[in-house]
Amino acid sequence: MAQQARAIKTRRAILEAAATVFAERGYERTTIGEILVRAGVTKGALYFHFASKEDLALGVLDAQMLDEPMSPQPIKLQELADQAFLLGHRLQRDPLVRASVALALDSGATGVDRAAPFKAWIDQVSEILTVAKTRGEILGHVDVSDTAELFSGAYAGIQTMSQILRDRNDLNHRVSVLLRYLLPSICTPALLTGLRLNEDRAEQLAAEYDASQSRREEQ
Amino acid sequence: MAQQARAIKTRRAILEAAATVFAERGYERTTIGEILVRAGVTKGALYFHFASKEDLALGVLDAQMLDEPMSPQPIKLQELADQAFLLGHRLQRDPLVRASVALALDSGATGVDRAAPFKAWIDQVSEILTVAKTRGEILGHVDVSDTAELFSGAYAGIQTMSQILRDRNDLNHRVSVLLRYLLPSICTPALLTGLRLNEDRAEQLAAEYDASQSRREEQ
Repeated sequence: MAQQARAIKTRRAILEAAATVFAERGYERTTIGEILVRAGVTKGALYFHFASKEDLALGVLDAQMLDEPMSPQPIKLQELADQAFLLGHRLQRDPLVRASVALALDSGATGVDRAAPFKAWIDQVSEILTVAKTRGEILGHVDVSDTAELFSGAYAGIQTMSQILRDRNDLNHRVSVLLRYLLPSICTPALLTGLRLNEDRAEQLAAEYDASQSRREEQ
Repeated sequence: MAQQARAIKTRRAILEAAATVFAERGYERTTIGEILVRAGVTKGALYFHFASKEDLALGVLDAQMLDEPMSPQPIKLQELADQAFLLGHRLQRDPLVRASVALALDSGATGVDRAAPFKAWIDQVSEILTVAKTRGEILGHVDVSDTAELFSGAYAGIQTMSQILRDRNDLNHRVSVLLRYLLPSICTPALLTGLRLNEDRAEQLAAEYDASQSRREEQ
């Protein structure tokens, strides 16, 4: 178990080093040698975890996805809001998550499958919407695929704008605005009042997430 | 007049060269010398139009804004939709507009004021919303500033996603989805049916824009 914890730590250190070098040098110009120097690990350790530079990029891209399931909510659409707030918190807290999103949006990184994280988010949002639809939470005209793509794309843009204009300090507010303006076109009116789309929900989720992370690190 | 037309052409050629080199090399690593070679103009010609590399970047960033006013519409909120469709068309048609948006979203370009184009779009959207509000087109709870920022940020994200997933071929559809899901939270219901938010509106505006550009080039 101690060995497994060490392996997880090494993998994370390599990913953080890779993310930093990608951000500084651009993905295309980065060499594995530079990542080795930055991570301070042996070639053997790196290749134990990652087969290639592209594999490292995929690891960085994957870091924006949650590594534990979300808490189920009585109204399924609340999970859409919770996921958006939680990604906002992780973007503010974790440099690796920021690097992951930056790499996905880096138009110079032509050798990387930048579509992968977008598709992963679209899939997650589609799943939530599909369940919400079977439960009758969603208005009749709503197209699940269009809505999932709109939500994922719009989120990517508002977090970029928040980063550029306010160093992400207003991200909770912007996510709340996105949810409050979008959900009335998706959710049946009778359920709208049961949804928590304000910044206090973001703060509550952030505190729960941090507590859960601390518990995992102690173990 | 012929001289002025030549100057406009030279300025445009320099901006296109700068945009191409920024995209290939990254803004930070680009030198004025590289832009000179690419544009095939003299140092004197370049410095006649642009004082520095940063000035060139500002010129590229500015290229995403429309250089002629939009046609006024009976329902003011239609202009919000028209602006969004028209930018979509210009992104599909004009490499300089694409380069402009790419530079604004390039997180490696630390020496450039990437906030400028976001602020310019937010201002334009705010102006439309403010007029729409005085005309009673807008629901009472709508916050103009929040909505303008949401719309600009969400647009930036959906065009990035469209670029990554479909090479921008589905951009008209995505813009239409954004408008159709967002405007019911903004616009008074009685006016909604008067708005044209579908892809045929995008096609009509594109044809009008292309015709107007052709006329200007002939002159």
